[in-house]
Amino acid sequence: MSTVGILGGGQLARMMALAGAPLGLRFLVLDTVTDACAGQFAPMVVGDYTDPSALAQFASQVDVATFDFENVPAQSAQWLTERVPVFPGPRALATAQDRLAEKTLFRELGIPVPPFAAIGTLAELQAAVQGIGTPCILKTRRLGYDGKGQFRIKTPADVDAAWAALGAQAGHVGLILEGFVAFQRELSVVAVRGRDGEFRAWPLTENWHVDGVLSASLAPAQVEDALRDTALGYAQALAEALDYVGVFALELFCRDGELLANEMAPRVHNSGHWTIEGSETSQFQNHLRAVLGLPLGSTRMIGTACMLNWLGQMPDAGAVLAEAGGHWHDYGKQPRAGRKVGHATLRADSRKELADALQRVGEALGLQGQVAPVVRALESAG
Amino acid sequence: MSTVGILGGGQLARMMALAGAPLGLRFLVLDTVTDACAGQFAPMVVGDYTDPSALAQFASQVDVATFDFENVPAQSAQWLTERVPVFPGPRALATAQDRLAEKTLFRELGIPVPPFAAIGTLAELQAAVQGIGTPCILKTRRLGYDGKGQFRIKTPADVDAAWAALGAQAGHVGLILEGFVAFQRELSVVAVRGRDGEFRAWPLTENWHVDGVLSASLAPAQVEDALRDTALGYAQALAEALDYVGVFALELFCRDGELLANEMAPRVHNSGHWTIEGSETSQFQNHLRAVLGLPLGSTRMIGTACMLNWLGQMPDAGAVLAEAGGHWHDYGKQPRAGRKVGHATLRADSRKELADALQRVGEALGLQGQVAPVVRALESAG
Repeated sequence: MSTVGILGGGQLARMMALAGAPLGLRFLVLDTVTDACAGQFAPMVVGDYTDPSALAQFASQVDVATFDFENVPAQSAQWLTERVPVFPGPRALATAQDRLAEKTLFRELGIPVPPFAAIGTLAELQAAVQGIGTPCILKTRRLGYDGKGQFRIKTPADVDAAWAALGAQAGHVGLILEGFVAFQRELSVVAVRGRDGEFRAWPLTENWHVDGVLSASLAPAQVEDALRDTALGYAQALAEALDYVGVFALELFCRDGELLANEMAPRVHNSGHWTIEGSETSQFQNHLRAVLGLPLGSTRMIGTACMLNWLGQMPDAGAVLAEAGGHWHDYGKQPRAGRKVGHATLRADSRKELADALQRVGEALGLQGQVAPVVRALESAG
Repeated sequence: MSTVGILGGGQLARMMALAGAPLGLRFLVLDTVTDACAGQFAPMVVGDYTDPSALAQFASQVDVATFDFENVPAQSAQWLTERVPVFPGPRALATAQDRLAEKTLFRELGIPVPPFAAIGTLAELQAAVQGIGTPCILKTRRLGYDGKGQFRIKTPADVDAAWAALGAQAGHVGLILEGFVAFQRELSVVAVRGRDGEFRAWPLTENWHVDGVLSASLAPAQVEDALRDTALGYAQALAEALDYVGVFALELFCRDGELLANEMAPRVHNSGHWTIEGSETSQFQNHLRAVLGLPLGSTRMIGTACMLNWLGQMPDAGAVLAEAGGHWHDYGKQPRAGRKVGHATLRADSRKELADALQRVGEALGLQGQVAPVVRALESAG
């Protein structure tokens, strides 16, 4: 009976433990806080991710280790790698932690990306803004999460303000300037690659963000087969280049029928939560199968599915539970503004049924704005 | 955030906790042994089910209580009922714990049962065997489990041996003589009833037992609509008569197109394990929804499904995991002869696909005998 160690004890670790229990696995979670929500269903070690004694205690009790967040300190990942098998490996983690390395790899693999430039000084920023044009976005290279550490440059006049906001981080974490993409749609590929190199992807997902945080996901995304195949091809090329093991997400912008890579997440991903009920095998179980070298499960869909994120606090569950295809996911967290506290997945056999269910739920919860773009996408595709 | 207390920490409690986590529930399990498998994913109180201090510790920490086995001592159930809401209630438990009360209720409700008689003395046994005829089965009224506490009387000459085996229990737990049913098929209804009286049943399931222990289940059972409706009607009548809250199973024999009730289980049931992947809402989550007064989830099937029980020790997982619709359930138990240690569910969109998958798994694991009757049922129905 294997014990899987997970660095980070948030909802991703929690859902991973729940999905791994049927495989006969045990779990150990390392988190900095005692009330991490994964700790409600798995034993924990509480300590800083760089604390040698916490890491040693963790490593001594697990057969394999993985992560529920990508910003694991590099030296901690390295330390662990020398003691237990760690998936995904340090190279994938290092690449995904650095927007510059990530975008450079995308470009090397022939995956289209928005224009970008490394920024070390104000002069470099001025030159890059001139080259890339406005609007563009100045970002920290590392530790960005959900829109933090970013400054949007609407006109060249904003350059000084952008530098004032983020310039101090140029030396420490580094900066990158990216051209702003006026995209029509956001898509993601959630995929898994096994220890033996087998690659499987779930159907393409369409996503809607609000203030930089995922609000809703719809699968399968209503796109042409050629576009879908291109997206899946990019994901596979990326996974192979990184010799990736486990589940990852590749976020893409779609502009005028053309795909541009935004970023990758080297872990199970919010835009793949619908796979729990909407697919034969969830992203959480397939991540564990990959990490343990077990056969990968089928990624085929069961009908069509929409995930709605709950931020701040949980709405009333009744409207979702009353839907035939309604599934509730309360992460067991304390409410806090902007915090991801749960999600719902609505599953249906047809797009029409799904749109109707979304309308009902949106009205019952007063969240018409959250469901509206998904309903429009479903109706326009019908 | 509610905490659900579960008396008994076996696989049923374990799967209940895993299914309830997404509802934001917490769990507390009371079991007599420290290594009860539910304890791998839920906190535990270890103590005897009749230990007042263990019960008090348990009751003080839970908002509602339920069971993972039916033979909860009556006085413990009563004690709990006076302190926290307990579902199913004491009457359902008392009825299901006593074969005589159960069969008497079936008869009162117009649910056909094999002939039976209460037995207190050898003379009563002799008279009942003459009245009912052979073959027949002498059983203890209480605490029977998976074929234990039973003696099959093939001819009247076996009466003395039957009395020698079980007669000492006539005064304590009571005995019942039941006519033997030469059935062609075994079916079960797994159903749920909410606090508000709403009733839902999953599609009828066909079951195969070996040595009195469930070996395989197939859903939907291939039966005529009228037979199915009759079976579901019996289950609903029973649930209403007991004012039942939660999931239960009604086991039925089918002989010459006629149904005879065997017994009810006042809990989630082994023949409903396929609902985890084969249905929109699993029996485990619906049991919790019922117990908590939440809306019941849809019991519609997703394709067709077969559950195979693993007894004694887990087989190699590879063959099942390699199937597109293969799902593995390792309960995290130590191997022991005859023990239920796990199960697999195979799900498919058609009976043909399911039969093919079963054949492959049976051959890979050397368990052709276990899958053969299910394959025959699938093929004969095709």
